[in-house]
Amino acid sequence: MQFYSFWRSLAAFRVRIALNIKGIVPDEMITVDLIKGDQREPAFRAVNPQMRLPALTDGDGPILFQSVAIMEYLEETRPEPPLLPKDPRGRARVRALSAIVTSDSHPLIVPRVRNFFEHELKLDEPTRMKWIRHWVNEGLASLEGHLSRDKETGKFSHGNNVTMADLCLVSQAASARFFEVDTAPYPTVKRIAETCLAIDAFARAHPLKQPGAPQNLGH
Amino acid sequence: MQFYSFWRSLAAFRVRIALNIKGIVPDEMITVDLIKGDQREPAFRAVNPQMRLPALTDGDGPILFQSVAIMEYLEETRPEPPLLPKDPRGRARVRALSAIVTSDSHPLIVPRVRNFFEHELKLDEPTRMKWIRHWVNEGLASLEGHLSRDKETGKFSHGNNVTMADLCLVSQAASARFFEVDTAPYPTVKRIAETCLAIDAFARAHPLKQPGAPQNLGH
Repeated sequence: MQFYSFWRSLAAFRVRIALNIKGIVPDEMITVDLIKGDQREPAFRAVNPQMRLPALTDGDGPILFQSVAIMEYLEETRPEPPLLPKDPRGRARVRALSAIVTSDSHPLIVPRVRNFFEHELKLDEPTRMKWIRHWVNEGLASLEGHLSRDKETGKFSHGNNVTMADLCLVSQAASARFFEVDTAPYPTVKRIAETCLAIDAFARAHPLKQPGAPQNLGH
Repeated sequence: MQFYSFWRSLAAFRVRIALNIKGIVPDEMITVDLIKGDQREPAFRAVNPQMRLPALTDGDGPILFQSVAIMEYLEETRPEPPLLPKDPRGRARVRALSAIVTSDSHPLIVPRVRNFFEHELKLDEPTRMKWIRHWVNEGLASLEGHLSRDKETGKFSHGNNVTMADLCLVSQAASARFFEVDTAPYPTVKRIAETCLAIDAFARAHPLKQPGAPQNLGH
């Protein structure tokens, strides 16, 4: 098993947590430096023509890509401990909470979007930060709206066990930190993120604990 | 079962196809006019605080939301005919192809993003169209890159049976039509979209066949 990762990738962060929780240690961790542009090099393009992280090989067969698809694959092939509840309605809730992050909020702030803003639309830094902070806040508010209302919310996003929703929530909280968005208005999200990050499987997966990461974010 | 839908919503389009394929007829189809802003009215906010389509009720219990979560729920509760293959690796491929649409491309062109461009960033129409067409093309190119390369591609995105990836691919092709993006450079996507739209379950679900839809797109 080879895992293609980069400290700054929040999608790779989600998959690192899943691997840690399930006790899976990839044979090789390959750093693809998204800041230097390693993802556009032929070596990685051959692995994933979409030039995106994360990517995972597992024995023979084509590369696994897209964080949600990888998490679902790990859940199906290494079911313990589970990252989804057993009941279809609970699974739907966990997947929908996850999608708030992976389909609504995070896609709007990824590097390729920030680059398009800078180089194609020629938007200045304050405009780019306004955009990013708006969607980070929007994702946090959407999560908070559901989590603070639903009786299914427990110690974690869904009851008292970690689910895929928590992996996504923690990556959203990390994006808030990266872009200096205050999470105080989202107390349920903040509480769950702190509870998760006190767990070793989450803490070890944190962006700032990865090879090549800066000691702090420098702002 | 109550299904909250709108002709223009591409995420609702995906779920309409899934319902049709599985032969599920909701007791009620409720139109939420996203152009008029019905999604922000208290009646719908009580249903889905995230104010987004699609949303589905199924008996008692909380609302189902997020198109991928709804499709996975329908697959788990009404497994025939299946929208995912049986093998984990095939399922991962179908989910990853789906995510190219639902997590990479479509989130960048939804109305709330276009509204933010217009009202918050004060970007003009040509700039907004440049943005939209870039990401529609990007999604089509990503799909084409995988579909044209992978031996798993068949009559449909994954082999010779319809999967969730086709539902997402067809919604991507619809966004190309909405925003006048030529799909000729993406022949595999184009072929599969045409094959799908010849099937009644897809054709009946098409945005322009829904209540309130215009006779044509007017451009």
